[in-house]
Parts: sequence; C-alpha cells; structure tokens
Amino acid sequence: MRPQKIIEAKRDGAELTREQIDSFIEGVCDDSWADYQTAALLMAMFTRGLSQAEQDALTYAMLHSGVILDLSGIEGPKVDKHSTGGVGDKTSLVIAPIVAACGGTVPMISGRGLGHTGGTLDKLESIPGYNVNLSCEGFREVLKMCGYAMSGQTSDIAPADKKLYALRDATATVPYLPLIVSSIMSKKLAEGLDALVLDVKSGSGAFMKREGDARDLAAAMVRTGEAFGVKTQAIISNMAQPLGAFVGNALEVYECVRILQGETEPAWRDTAELSFELAAHMLVLSDLSGGMDKARSRVEEAVNSGEALAKFSKNCELQGGDPKVCEKPERVFEESLVRVPIKAPAPGYISGVDALAIGDGVVALGGGRLKAEDDVDHAVGFRCDVKVGEEVREGDLLGEIYCRTDEQGATVLAAFQTAYTITPEPVVASILIIDVI
Amino acid sequence: MRPQKIIEAKRDGAELTREQIDSFIEGVCDDSWADYQTAALLMAMFTRGLSQAEQDALTYAMLHSGVILDLSGIEGPKVDKHSTGGVGDKTSLVIAPIVAACGGTVPMISGRGLGHTGGTLDKLESIPGYNVNLSCEGFREVLKMCGYAMSGQTSDIAPADKKLYALRDATATVPYLPLIVSSIMSKKLAEGLDALVLDVKSGSGAFMKREGDARDLAAAMVRTGEAFGVKTQAIISNMAQPLGAFVGNALEVYECVRILQGETEPAWRDTAELSFELAAHMLVLSDLSGGMDKARSRVEEAVNSGEALAKFSKNCELQGGDPKVCEKPERVFEESLVRVPIKAPAPGYISGVDALAIGDGVVALGGGRLKAEDDVDHAVGFRCDVKVGEEVREGDLLGEIYCRTDEQGATVLAAFQTAYTITPEPVVASILIIDVI
Repeated sequence: MRPQKIIEAKRDGAELTREQIDSFIEGVCDDSWADYQTAALLMAMFTRGLSQAEQDALTYAMLHSGVILDLSGIEGPKVDKHSTGGVGDKTSLVIAPIVAACGGTVPMISGRGLGHTGGTLDKLESIPGYNVNLSCEGFREVLKMCGYAMSGQTSDIAPADKKLYALRDATATVPYLPLIVSSIMSKKLAEGLDALVLDVKSGSGAFMKREGDARDLAAAMVRTGEAFGVKTQAIISNMAQPLGAFVGNALEVYECVRILQGETEPAWRDTAELSFELAAHMLVLSDLSGGMDKARSRVEEAVNSGEALAKFSKNCELQGGDPKVCEKPERVFEESLVRVPIKAPAPGYISGVDALAIGDGVVALGGGRLKAEDDVDHAVGFRCDVKVGEEVREGDLLGEIYCRTDEQGATVLAAFQTAYTITPEPVVASILIIDVI
Repeated sequence: MRPQKIIEAKRDGAELTREQIDSFIEGVCDDSWADYQTAALLMAMFTRGLSQAEQDALTYAMLHSGVILDLSGIEGPKVDKHSTGGVGDKTSLVIAPIVAACGGTVPMISGRGLGHTGGTLDKLESIPGYNVNLSCEGFREVLKMCGYAMSGQTSDIAPADKKLYALRDATATVPYLPLIVSSIMSKKLAEGLDALVLDVKSGSGAFMKREGDARDLAAAMVRTGEAFGVKTQAIISNMAQPLGAFVGNALEVYECVRILQGETEPAWRDTAELSFELAAHMLVLSDLSGGMDKARSRVEEAVNSGEALAKFSKNCELQGGDPKVCEKPERVFEESLVRVPIKAPAPGYISGVDALAIGDGVVALGGGRLKAEDDVDHAVGFRCDVKVGEEVREGDLLGEIYCRTDEQGATVLAAFQTAYTITPEPVVASILIIDVI
C-alpha cells in the first residue's frame, strides 16, 4: 500500500482499515514511510479524528511492533501502575516495593522526565550505581528475585511509539486522545500484565489541565485495557499543587524512603496516601486482597513491618544501587547545596501552590530537561512546606529552593515565590483523589 | 516563532497571521523547519482550510522567497501564458513566437513533464542542442534579442515552492485550491509580468478532472493575479481528449513547427485554434491589440507572413538549438522508430479518446516520467488521427504508436486501443474552449 493512498483516505475523513493501519505502523518501523509522510498522517488523524475501531487497531499495531514481555515462570499476578505524570509525583518508588511485598509481580517500565514533569528513571539514577538499563533477561531476573524491577523502555518494546512520539512532539499532534491512549497503552500492554492501575492527573502540573479531559482519558484507557484482556482501573488525582514535600530527583528518593521507613510528616502525607491507595487498588484488581479495606490494611502492614523497605533494599542491590540509602536516605543529598527560603509575604490562607510554576522552576535549576537529550542535575530541587488551605503568618517558611549557588537561587526566586497565592479568607484544602473509574 | 506554535494554531482552525506565514516560509527556505513539520502544517492547512487573506499571504511569502525577474530595459509589455498541463498540450511553442512577433515580451519559465502530463522543457530538448538552463543574465539576453525566452525554473525563483511541492506530492496534499494557486502564481508572478493568460484544462487528461474544479481554480488564479497587480485572464479548455495530432516530445515539436509554417491539417486544427486564441488574449490583455477580432487577425498574419516562424528560428539559434528544424521539422524524428497502427474494431462514431490513457501510454513507452528524476525518451509517442465526433469504418486508422521495437509496441497496444470508444449513434464533436474567465 502506498503511503499517499492511506494519508489521502484519512485526509478525506475515511475510517482506516486494520490493514491500512498495520501497513502504516510497519512502514514507520521499517522506514519505508518517510517522517514527513508519518507527520502528515498524524495531523490528518488529529484533525479528522479516529474511531474506536481505528484507535484499537492502532494500539494493537503499535503493541505488536515490538516484543511482549514473556513473564511465564515468574510467580504472582503481574500488575503495574502508570501515572500520566506530574510535579513531585514519585509514587512508583513507594508502590512497587509495597505490592511486591504483598505478593504481586510489578514489571515497571518507566520513562525520563520532560518539561515540568519528572521521570522515574531520573529519580532512580540519583541512587549511586542504580542501573535503569536492564536487558530483557536482566529485567526478568530482578523481577524473579524481588518481585519488582524498574527499567527504561528498551528498543524492543513498542518501537513504533518511540518514533511516533518524537514526531508528535515536533508537529503539535500530542494532545489528541486516541493518539495518547495508543501511545501509553501499547507500552503498558507490552509488559504482559494481568492488571493495571492508572493514575490520571488533573490540574496545572498535569498533562491534562482540565478534569473533564482527565476523565475522558481515564475512561478511554480503562476501556482499552479491558478490550485487550487486562483488568484496568483508573484514579483521577489532583495535580493543581505538587505532590508531597519534595520536587527534584534525589530529594524525591529521600521522601520515598522516609515513607517506606514509616515516617509520617504532614508535608508528604499526600504522597503516602495516594501511593497506599493506588497500591491497594492493585492488590484488589489482581486478586491479592478481598476488598479495599483489607487491601489498605495489608499495604500499611507491609510498610510498618519493614517488608516494603526490605524489597526496596533488595531491588537496589539487584539493580546495582547502593542499598545504604535505605538506612540513611539523606545520603542521596549533596551537602554542598545552598538553600534559599521562600517566605509568606503576608498573613492569610494558602489558596494556590502552582504545580506548573514549581515544576518549571526546578527545570530552570537544571533538575529537569527541556529537550530529551539534555542532562539533569539530580541534586537540585524544591521543598514545599505548606499546602492549599493552610494558614500562614507573614514571614512563615513556605518552602526552600535547593540549588548550587546563591546566584542560581536568585535567578529563580521570583518564579517560586509567585507560585504561592495567599488570600485573607479561609480556603478549603484540596481533594487529593478526585474519583475512581 | 516556534514551528509547533504555528502548526498548533492551524491545527485548531485559527487564521494564520502574515507574520506566521512569513515565518513558516522563511523556515522552509533556511531549513529551520524540519520536513515533517512542514508536512504537518500542509496537512493542517488542507483539512482546516485557508482564508483568502492566508492564501494571498502564502503566495506573497513564496514569491518573495526568491528573486523577481528584473526586465527593466527590455521593451514591450511583459506577458506570459501558463497552462495547468495536459496530454499533447504544446501551445507554448506556438504562442511565444507569435506574441513576440506581435511586439510582446514573453519571459516563459516552464517545467518538465510528470506523470501523464508533458512538459515544455522536455519538448524543447528534443531539438538538438537546445539549452533550457539559462542563467538570469542569459535569459534577459535572449529575451532582448528575440522577444521570448524559454527556461527552467532556477533555484532563485520561488525556492519555497520547490520544497513544498515535493512534500505535497509525497503527503497527499496536492489537490487543495489555495495551495495550488499559491504554487502556480508565486512562480508566474516572479516573472515580473504585466499580463498573464491562464489555460486551465478540464477533463480526464487534466489535473482538474471536473469542470467545476477547473472553473474554481481559474477564478482563484485570476483574482490572485489581479490582487498582485498583473492583468490576468483565464480560459477553460477541454482536456478530455488529447490536444492536436501528436503526443510525445519530438513529435509535438514537429506539430508546432508545421503550424508555424502555416500548414493546416485537421488533426492539429485544435492545437492551432487554442494557441491562436490564447495568443490573441495575450495581445489584448497587454494592450498590443484593440480587441479580440483584431488580435486574432494579427496572430494569423504573424503566422502566415512567416514572422512567427522567424522568431522561433531566432530563439533556437540564441538558445543553442539547431534552427534547421524550422525548415525541415521532420529532422527531430528518429527514422528508426517502429510504427504500430491502432485500428477501429467496429464502424461507428468516436465517443471518447481518453487523454489520460494516451498520456499514460506514452509514459509507458518511456516518453514521460513517473518520478522527477527519471530520464525521458524524446523520440517515442503517439499520433491521434481521429477526434470525438468523427465517423469511422471498421479497420480505419485511429492513430499510430511511435516506439522503439515491435515488442515494445505490443506491450502498450491494448492501452492505446482501449483509449478509444466507438458508439453506433452519431456523437457531437467536443467543444475546445469551454469558457473565458
């Protein structure tokens, strides 16, 4: 099939057949489609729309453009969590060891941060020696030995998505639901899962700014997961303000280990709550627990007993990371960092902590990347001390910038300061989990 | 301006500003826009549409992406003809010397054949030695010395169009009126004209198969020409059957010289009629003649007096071609060609001579090209002996294939044979000039 004929059909609003979509994805993978032809079809898909059947065919073709992990011979239900990304969103590092401790097998393939949203791989790499580039065999081995493994997407997994995503990013064709769903789900389905829990973020720091869009995406992904034989559930969670106390790679690892140590601090209560809730859903969905109440108790027991932290430590060891981080999580900090405080300019109630502004501020410090090929400074970041709804006095500490020099701190100070809004009237605290779908 | 922002605006149906369109065309020329970004914007333009203002801004930006010919110091009104292309469409070679003989200056920049439609440059190159790659200075010189010059598009003229056209061809974004208009008109306006006559073809052998589409294109180009200060007129002419007697490069040159010699043969009466009519419109539009009747007489006088042929001869000489072709036009033929006759399988009236089928047949002989980089065999082609409406007896000669070997003739015989349809009932002859706009 000539690319032009397929492009022409979609250009004129026709529904593409499974054969046409297969031919497209094959052509993307074997380079018989030029990038400009792929870009033209993506734009035609965006502007003319894709039906449910086309979306499923695209997901199927992208999934089968690569390998599907063969996890046979590894015990326990295969279950994963996927988040659409946010600021301070570090739940994977808490959830995976908990679910593994409760008998689940978590084959977690993650990405790197881009723009204001962080990435699990970057966070893990702030643990000295931690290797996120496992081979398929190495991934299976780690999974078998400790119940969870964390790795980057190899070139074997949904290679079509890698190419399509790069082109979509450059051609303004990212924000279209069927393309988003096929991109996320083709990668997740390649993990050979029994169950999948999705954390769809909504708010300024999320990909989906509006709750309605987040709900649509959640519903579409749940439908697709189920259509492909994977038990799927989605949570809509709030990303108007950053999650937890810390934003920044090493700082977030610190927060996660402290949670796994059973430390309860108000500033990261939301991280713990969302992580525990997602983990409980994973247990229920994969029949490891009889209901949400029991599942939630089991999750907390796994943390309080130290089982989850032991899994984390074991995983560190297996993936080459220094397990001493589990005893002294402050080891991931660099002592030489300069801290610049952000103080309340007036008394009142916190009415907003803009997640996008804080995420962008950390990128400006070098803690995130604007382009995929940029390097990341794992040490720098930000600590949020107050959340929406809290009362503050003038001069109270709202948070602290962790940066390399005073000069660097000065250049980003205003950006962090304006992320906070304070009103004289009391403000209701934000809901963390908006809905379960 | 980031390409993504401009693509996004058109993707969402916004009207692009002049600044955005300028930035796009600049980016195409300096390669700061990747081909896939250009392709995505072209598809967004196609599916979301372009307003009149956007179309004019695009034409303007493409025109000014290169040089505009400076023809100051050359006498006479600058006037050109442009055809949208067809099968056997050779009028440029007849028109340019006639208009030059009548006092016009014709700076004709032409293209090569692609697919079933022929190209003026290929026809000219069948004259031994004829050079179609003139420099700007050489082009001016020829124009000054004989009133017309014929050359290919240099890289200086509307370079944006060259890139855009190649991408449109590969991404199914050719058939959209505003893109067609901006492509054609940016090149024609670069000739620095006072007047322009357009020959918009309609029918199976034309780019616009349907008369309504041809009318829309004609109207849009006339409007654009006038908006840019060039007196513009369009003719809609019939391209359901091939024009004239011959299809094939050298064969078409033969036909043109015979017409300029004043030879009147029924088989090329339509070529002469369309050429004379277009030439007369050019004279009227550029104030070289007082009205169509007078202009038409002047045209015929230029032919009958031998003035037009003398211009042709002079131009040949100036552009390196062998002027002896004017005395003995059969010199361009290759004597070794094999002729394969097409005969009427039944008595009746010719109801169709499918221009597309005949054009494709000549391409199959090697007389045209499928890809821009293909070579062309200038000698081969086809002679059409009968036109729609003519009565034939069984076994009458309908035409002849001019090919290299009997074997080659055998492979294309059926294609030429099925181009002709014969019905028992009388058929009205086709109208050649459908309308003047």
